[in-house]
Amino acid sequence: MTTDLETPAVRAVRERVASLHAELVRYGLVVWTGGNVSGRVPGQDLFVIKPSGVDYDDLAPENMILCTLDGEVVPGSIGSERSPSSDTAAHAYVYRSMPEVGGVVHTHSTYATAWAARAEAIPCVITAMADEFGGEIPVGPFAIIGDDSIGRGIVQTLTGHRSRAVLMQNHGVFTIGRDARDAVKAAVMAEDVARTVHLARQGGPLVPIPQEAIDRLFDRYQNVYGQNPEGSLA
Amino acid sequence: MTTDLETPAVRAVRERVASLHAELVRYGLVVWTGGNVSGRVPGQDLFVIKPSGVDYDDLAPENMILCTLDGEVVPGSIGSERSPSSDTAAHAYVYRSMPEVGGVVHTHSTYATAWAARAEAIPCVITAMADEFGGEIPVGPFAIIGDDSIGRGIVQTLTGHRSRAVLMQNHGVFTIGRDARDAVKAAVMAEDVARTVHLARQGGPLVPIPQEAIDRLFDRYQNVYGQNPEGSLA
Amino acid sequence: MTTDLETPAVRAVRERVASLHAELVRYGLVVWTGGNVSGRVPGQDLFVIKPSGVDYDDLAPENMILCTLDGEVVPGSIGSERSPSSDTAAHAYVYRSMPEVGGVVHTHSTYATAWAARAEAIPCVITAMADEFGGEIPVGPFAIIGDDSIGRGIVQTLTGHRSRAVLMQNHGVFTIGRDARDAVKAAVMAEDVARTVHLARQGGPLVPIPQEAIDRLFDRYQNVYGQNPEGSLA
Amino acid sequence: MTTDLETPAVRAVRERVASLHAELVRYGLVVWTGGNVSGRVPGQDLFVIKPSGVDYDDLAPENMILCTLDGEVVPGSIGSERSPSSDTAAHAYVYRSMPEVGGVVHTHSTYATAWAARAEAIPCVITAMADEFGGEIPVGPFAIIGDDSIGRGIVQTLTGHRSRAVLMQNHGVFTIGRDARDAVKAAVMAEDVARTVHLARQGGPLVPIPQEAIDRLFDRYQNVYGQNPEGSLA
Repeated sequence: MTTDLETPAVRAVRERVASLHAELVRYGLVVWTGGNVSGRVPGQDLFVIKPSGVDYDDLAPENMILCTLDGEVVPGSIGSERSPSSDTAAHAYVYRSMPEVGGVVHTHSTYATAWAARAEAIPCVITAMADEFGGEIPVGPFAIIGDDSIGRGIVQTLTGHRSRAVLMQNHGVFTIGRDARDAVKAAVMAEDVARTVHLARQGGPLVPIPQEAIDRLFDRYQNVYGQNPEGSLA
Repeated sequence: MTTDLETPAVRAVRERVASLHAELVRYGLVVWTGGNVSGRVPGQDLFVIKPSGVDYDDLAPENMILCTLDGEVVPGSIGSERSPSSDTAAHAYVYRSMPEVGGVVHTHSTYATAWAARAEAIPCVITAMADEFGGEIPVGPFAIIGDDSIGRGIVQTLTGHRSRAVLMQNHGVFTIGRDARDAVKAAVMAEDVARTVHLARQGGPLVPIPQEAIDRLFDRYQNVYGQNPEGSLA
Repeated sequence: MTTDLETPAVRAVRERVASLHAELVRYGLVVWTGGNVSGRVPGQDLFVIKPSGVDYDDLAPENMILCTLDGEVVPGSIGSERSPSSDTAAHAYVYRSMPEVGGVVHTHSTYATAWAARAEAIPCVITAMADEFGGEIPVGPFAIIGDDSIGRGIVQTLTGHRSRAVLMQNHGVFTIGRDARDAVKAAVMAEDVARTVHLARQGGPLVPIPQEAIDRLFDRYQNVYGQNPEGSLA
Repeated sequence: MTTDLETPAVRAVRERVASLHAELVRYGLVVWTGGNVSGRVPGQDLFVIKPSGVDYDDLAPENMILCTLDGEVVPGSIGSERSPSSDTAAHAYVYRSMPEVGGVVHTHSTYATAWAARAEAIPCVITAMADEFGGEIPVGPFAIIGDDSIGRGIVQTLTGHRSRAVLMQNHGVFTIGRDARDAVKAAVMAEDVARTVHLARQGGPLVPIPQEAIDRLFDRYQNVYGQNPEGSLA
């Protein structure tokens, strides 16, 4: 059975998801075993996620966990003897509810979590934030692990919103993307703007950016930037 | 005599304690030769601790120091020609008083020490802190090196408390764990939450987490998280 | 045609510009694919710049882009199948308008961008800032990508100013230099002083430096410091 | 002549001083080519210092500069074709005036310089600071490069003071030690306590440490800590 499950598509997502965790470490978004990345297997009702409580140094394609969109480990799959990330149910809820999403990331990165502890959205006062998020980064509800309330809070907050990042109150940040790499980029940029805007405000009043300029920046960035613009999730 | 002392259990703790110091460096919890990790030798009235004033780059199993629970270097043991950490008496006091503790860590990590310089407990406003510490991180008394007052302050503050970390006033942080690795994790997480909550409060009022939610998060994390949940110290 | 274009001078600038991007990473001035360095080809109406949206780990002389001073990619040149940095028009405007400039750098480095989000110049209260910038680091106008308004804002702000750095409002920082390395140094120093002065002011009132002392420090540094003083841009 | 100058003692100091610069980088105390370490040649009226404006990656025993206590490069010595650090006169003044000093370090480390930009001494509110500095870290006068005023300010401030570190107003920090390594340690610890006390005070009122406790900590640390206590400079 394992052989059938381990298609080239599954293997490719395992490799991508395992290696993308190194970006969370590189940018200082995680400590110890916290944080997790997942990626949808294209064309199948499956996704790949980090195991629970395993060191970042020890992550490899073979210990990533293959799950159904109900958040259940696929029996007999490689790595299925381990427990998946304790945030698996939230990732699964997002994949079930948002078919355009191909990757999900969760961290407790410092500055994003600091805004979340005040339940305060990050205002859009720098052009990089207009490019990447198209406006503020919103706050989702307080919800604790154990049922679908975290996943539901993410989906309700991000549906119809330009932002690919949501600050879950008193908790941390979840980001989505068209694939796992795009969601990791959103996590990196969310922490970067959370830090910059925090520091900016410590020094005095912020200068707002006109909404019309935010709109133009977001539109341009989603359609022009990079070598292969692929359009926005939003 | 050395041969008899260097049982496989002692050797294993030497290796573990020496290598765990690298985590203090990795997470920026220490500078120069500050900070120390110790681990109890299972089933014996002994523990292993870092030598005093030795560079982190030079730590190895062979220069860790084997001590009795009175904090005395075991005569004739490997490394016994060196002085143990100047905090050895405090570690020893904890091992004598709290038989469930298998590891102790001490650092002057920046944000935890900043709270300690105000003698202010860190309030529990993020879910990761509820998971890990079950509520606030408390403050212990002002006590200076030279007698049992530091050890006694740690034990009095942590006995019956969910937190595995205590901020010693004007000094730094001590953490305990079921083994040395668990105490190092507590030191890493204590600094992480000290930083996040510090920054959160710089930006405005914090949103409290209901006590009932803190209780549920702590209970779940102690019993479910990771590949091999082993229960809490508390 | 490629052979003719790839003179030793072009090749040397490609190598210099590619490797200088590592300094942006080393000093934490950039995240993901943000930020860019360019360098003028001495004696020709050409400059070399980073491609758009390419990982810092993947930058090499071969994927740097050769552009005319109108900001157009030179047809048939090595790497010309890629898009240049989305900030290319701003770099080109600077090279056209300021013939003494041999290098341009743009980043969204954290502290410089925080000052920019308040549209606040960084006051000169430390001697290293007097040395390097000869006074405050000024603020340029709010301008968004898509026409010459960013380039024009940089040139108008820096023309006749001692500073080689300008904070573009709500955006980030641009620096100029006599060559690419000098502009990178200015970017590194701009972030360093932005951070130090931010933190200084968080703690209470700053002590000003007398203008006469600023003038003497700037003059001396431009003419004496280092192994081969080459004089100031200003 | 070179052969006579390059005694084993000179060679040893060259090696020590060159390699100690890596500690300034490791602890983030310097950017670009800023900062410098020097060390006295025991038993001779000579010291070794970093060259001016050379990359940290390129420092080696061979490019360290040998100087007399008047701050002049020793003619014909290895590396004498280069200019010494622009702070050489200040180092020389200290060696001439304080015969017990064997090492001097200068940096613009972020938090120490932030206190210096306010001309504010760092209060002693953490025990590590009592251990290392025996009380507050004092502020020296505003003085600019070009004559003996920096060296005189350092010596006047530190003579008879327990602290091995002085914050030079609007400038940065100078530290002294019984040898170059000891001065580097003081530079590392000065930045560490500057950061911790800055952050502590951002959060509210600090708790003072009784003077009597500061005295006991300082006395003990100077005489007991480490493998080979050698007594204090003070």
